[in-house]
Amino acid sequence: MSELFEKRKTIEQVEEGSELAPKFDEHGLIPVVTTDYATGELLMHGYMNAEALKQTIEKGQAVYYSRSRKALWHKGATSGLYQDIVEMRIDDDQDCVWLRVKVSGSGASCHVGYRSCFYRTVPNGKSFEAGKPVKLTYTELTKTFDPKEVYGDAPNPTQL
Amino acid sequence: MSELFEKRKTIEQVEEGSELAPKFDEHGLIPVVTTDYATGELLMHGYMNAEALKQTIEKGQAVYYSRSRKALWHKGATSGLYQDIVEMRIDDDQDCVWLRVKVSGSGASCHVGYRSCFYRTVPNGKSFEAGKPVKLTYTELTKTFDPKEVYGDAPNPTQL
Repeated sequence: MSELFEKRKTIEQVEEGSELAPKFDEHGLIPVVTTDYATGELLMHGYMNAEALKQTIEKGQAVYYSRSRKALWHKGATSGLYQDIVEMRIDDDQDCVWLRVKVSGSGASCHVGYRSCFYRTVPNGKSFEAGKPVKLTYTELTKTFDPKEVYGDAPNPTQL
Repeated sequence: MSELFEKRKTIEQVEEGSELAPKFDEHGLIPVVTTDYATGELLMHGYMNAEALKQTIEKGQAVYYSRSRKALWHKGATSGLYQDIVEMRIDDDQDCVWLRVKVSGSGASCHVGYRSCFYRTVPNGKSFEAGKPVKLTYTELTKTFDPKEVYGDAPNPTQL
């Protein structure tokens, strides 16, 4: 565990204190929610291990842990699309991190080429028709970059 | 698996298709990011199992799976603070759900009493001083409700 983090001792300390005492799951990871500072758009959902969280705090830029590559992942190191942190928050029980970022370059955050990873909507409530297959619709109609140009032959991180 | 979901067959189907083919982790869960529709504020980060995702789509209201209580959790059923979904999205590899919601009543989403679960900021980059303990600061200064009045003696979901 990094010297930046405190041990988790009491619920009051974790929920109402000013000590950073993050909870990592059984894989040593904490989920991270990354939104665009200006628009509030959800760009991506990733994970950090203790070292990634430490480097993120030190750099002021997002460093994740890639579960598919099993390695630290300084976002932007390959693509140039760094995520500069404007504000970083942690939740009540300190088991989730929120990054509000400005993205360099084209502003994209998604390896498929879209600005946000969340480029499709799911029908629900009144827009959901029972008995019919659920059909996703696109909210982003064009890609902001060509993944092949940026990533070349690097393996696709999506796993089935 | 629910009849609402397709089997995951190819990366192209998952990333570029219009079929809903969510990936549940080894515990049968998918992470969910919930933001306020009007402000973009991150309200909470939770999980759904297949049944919770199905009920969320059918109701148009957030239904989570509580890992601490090991039960379906129709948000608002105890507190009255229902989360009505304005838009629901899924990410590139379909292993994360984004809900954009309007919250009933006081608008709070956090069991500690704050509007957002993310009521504390973490210093980073230029605001981080190496060698000193990391000190969280509060972005929400007042609670929107008294958890004891709303939840009574129900056990606190935070786990150490």
